[in-house]
Amino acid sequence: MKKYLTEFIGTFFLVLTVVMAINNPATVAMAPLAVAGMYLAMIYAGAQVSGGHYNPAVTMAALMRGKIERGDALYYIMVQLVASVVAAAIGVYLHDCNNGAAIVARVNEQPICAVLAEFLGTFALVFVMLNVTSTRPNEGTPSSGLAIGFTVLAAGLAFGSLSGGAFNPAIAFGASVAGMFGWDDILVYLIGNTLGAAAAATAFQFTEDTDK
Amino acid sequence: MKKYLTEFIGTFFLVLTVVMAINNPATVAMAPLAVAGMYLAMIYAGAQVSGGHYNPAVTMAALMRGKIERGDALYYIMVQLVASVVAAAIGVYLHDCNNGAAIVARVNEQPICAVLAEFLGTFALVFVMLNVTSTRPNEGTPSSGLAIGFTVLAAGLAFGSLSGGAFNPAIAFGASVAGMFGWDDILVYLIGNTLGAAAAATAFQFTEDTDK
Amino acid sequence: MKKYLTEFIGTFFLVLTVVMAINNPATVAMAPLAVAGMYLAMIYAGAQVSGGHYNPAVTMAALMRGKIERGDALYYIMVQLVASVVAAAIGVYLHDCNNGAAIVARVNEQPICAVLAEFLGTFALVFVMLNVTSTRPNEGTPSSGLAIGFTVLAAGLAFGSLSGGAFNPAIAFGASVAGMFGWDDILVYLIGNTLGAAAAATAFQFTEDTDK
Amino acid sequence: MKKYLTEFIGTFFLVLTVVMAINNPATVAMAPLAVAGMYLAMIYAGAQVSGGHYNPAVTMAALMRGKIERGDALYYIMVQLVASVVAAAIGVYLHDCNNGAAIVARVNEQPICAVLAEFLGTFALVFVMLNVTSTRPNEGTPSSGLAIGFTVLAAGLAFGSLSGGAFNPAIAFGASVAGMFGWDDILVYLIGNTLGAAAAATAFQFTEDTDK
Repeated sequence: MKKYLTEFIGTFFLVLTVVMAINNPATVAMAPLAVAGMYLAMIYAGAQVSGGHYNPAVTMAALMRGKIERGDALYYIMVQLVASVVAAAIGVYLHDCNNGAAIVARVNEQPICAVLAEFLGTFALVFVMLNVTSTRPNEGTPSSGLAIGFTVLAAGLAFGSLSGGAFNPAIAFGASVAGMFGWDDILVYLIGNTLGAAAAATAFQFTEDTDK
Repeated sequence: MKKYLTEFIGTFFLVLTVVMAINNPATVAMAPLAVAGMYLAMIYAGAQVSGGHYNPAVTMAALMRGKIERGDALYYIMVQLVASVVAAAIGVYLHDCNNGAAIVARVNEQPICAVLAEFLGTFALVFVMLNVTSTRPNEGTPSSGLAIGFTVLAAGLAFGSLSGGAFNPAIAFGASVAGMFGWDDILVYLIGNTLGAAAAATAFQFTEDTDK
Repeated sequence: MKKYLTEFIGTFFLVLTVVMAINNPATVAMAPLAVAGMYLAMIYAGAQVSGGHYNPAVTMAALMRGKIERGDALYYIMVQLVASVVAAAIGVYLHDCNNGAAIVARVNEQPICAVLAEFLGTFALVFVMLNVTSTRPNEGTPSSGLAIGFTVLAAGLAFGSLSGGAFNPAIAFGASVAGMFGWDDILVYLIGNTLGAAAAATAFQFTEDTDK
Repeated sequence: MKKYLTEFIGTFFLVLTVVMAINNPATVAMAPLAVAGMYLAMIYAGAQVSGGHYNPAVTMAALMRGKIERGDALYYIMVQLVASVVAAAIGVYLHDCNNGAAIVARVNEQPICAVLAEFLGTFALVFVMLNVTSTRPNEGTPSSGLAIGFTVLAAGLAFGSLSGGAFNPAIAFGASVAGMFGWDDILVYLIGNTLGAAAAATAFQFTEDTDK
């Protein structure tokens, strides 16, 4: 089960980044970097659990090279396609939020969109972070900086126009002090970031590779 | 033989990325990143097999430093030049497909171009992935995320204007659900991605470093 | 104590990069890369000491996963929020320096701003460098190049419009020879870089993980 | 001696990249990435030999932390400043070549500029490559892909407007086949790349860390 959940999460964020970053005129020039960054991060996060495919073509090639069993490959591809549809549906919803224009300056009018954007970005960041730091407390792996840095890059490009892309109460707090965010929007960040972190910690519990 | 095939594949994609990304006004600003990314990815993919030269100047320096034999160096340079001509010819053909304008919105009118673009991008992605994941099932190396991420970046910049740059049926599926691709183009992606993955798995079989 | 100082420094530079790079029209397009780069660099610098959280949402998730003690987590979050306010205040001061326009060409009129920009950039660069090179003299870790490269990228985008972004007397010297900086501004760089390096070496002494 | 030569080469290319990439309107937006990339690459190339300082502020901090001896630190700083002046002088000469406009389309009119650009780019690429591949024939280190990829990125942004930025006879050959370069310019690439590779192999012989 943990393999399929990992494939779902990775494919979901890969496809959602494609839908969000390419469809936005403000980020389309950097979109290839956003997609590459999310793929990179999810591979570091999930390679030890599911192999980090997130792509039916990769699963098919892994099957040809004997790196995955036939039954497993079929489930992988099904999970990847389901994740893709869910990501596309959420992406369409999020695009409808702002019709392509930034809503950072009027977050309060669309609080659900902004909370959802902060929730998704924080989930990705915390899920990747928990996976790439080893099970020993507080110890980073060589890949950790890259995985986390590129998650922030990809999530910023994907969700930045909806919520400003904090994914971090300290950034939301500092940006409010600096006058970049309105103080009456601070709840958007506290709620989105707290729920996202809690959900990611729960998902990590189910996908954690306890054998290593 | 596996050394020469590796040098061929790496030089081919390096030169093809140069030809595609620099000649396209939409990607020329990011072209140095595309070329750097494809070089990086092919070095991680082929360093263990051929040393990852892909450049007669590097082969010459390796010869001066005693890292390659004279006869081998001559073959390396010949293979690199042949790969370069083949890449240039395909690059010219692909540029003629769309005369510099994106054809994503009218893929069905030029299905061979779009299938070829998806085939090449998927081949690069799967070939790199099979090389940078170890022979043990589903285990990533520290370089795996970087190699795969930068392959997606480079291939997206090189082939994105021809096919949208999915290289992944899950992305094609999700992008169709989100209305970014037309449903009548879905076969372009299924065919291009499947053939690309199968060809990459076959090429990997011939270049695999079975000694390690 | 060394954990809290590390969290303070990392969160401070993360939030300061957000405030500086996003609020500047000349760098906003590259701002996601600047923020990602500073996060990446500070994770490599501080992961061994504090876990490299720099984010209350990450600390909360680490608490849920048992990677940090409850009392520690509370202090982490307090330190992160204080660092965030300090960074925002300094960011607002630095923005007032130039009202959004580059002051590189008239550094002498605003020497304190330029010295502060060089001090902060050099501090970040040297603090990261001392942390990512091992305790053996002059030996780099695999992460060292990434951490230092991305610090230079992030600091250049955050502070470049104030001082040109040298953070290095050799660059200031060469840029003056090339006519990019005025010779009457050279003291700005010598003072800012020397004080920044000395402060970073002192901070490193307090945060150094002497157990490893 | 090998430490000082390594510091000279690293500082030279760092300052030259600053002078070339920032002063060129076509590359200024990507200049922070070019500078960061060249720094990253030169750190991977020289960290084992000289510590990869390339910056008097870093040398001073290393002195404060006891990572370098006082006499050595003085020589480091002197070598860094000399390298900086040489880089600035060459940078000014190269800028005068084209007055800020690309000369790729008329390389033959300014063959010395184009040959020099190809020589410098190929030198950097081959010098880095020889350093980051281990002494065993043809084996890459984890840092090799990053170091080489970012060298190509930085050199492309620094010298691309003068020669097209091939640094590789296979790319020059393929780009000529594709009609991007004129065939009557092919000697520019063959001479610049061959001399650059030979000079880099010679420099590597003097800086090679034979103890490892």
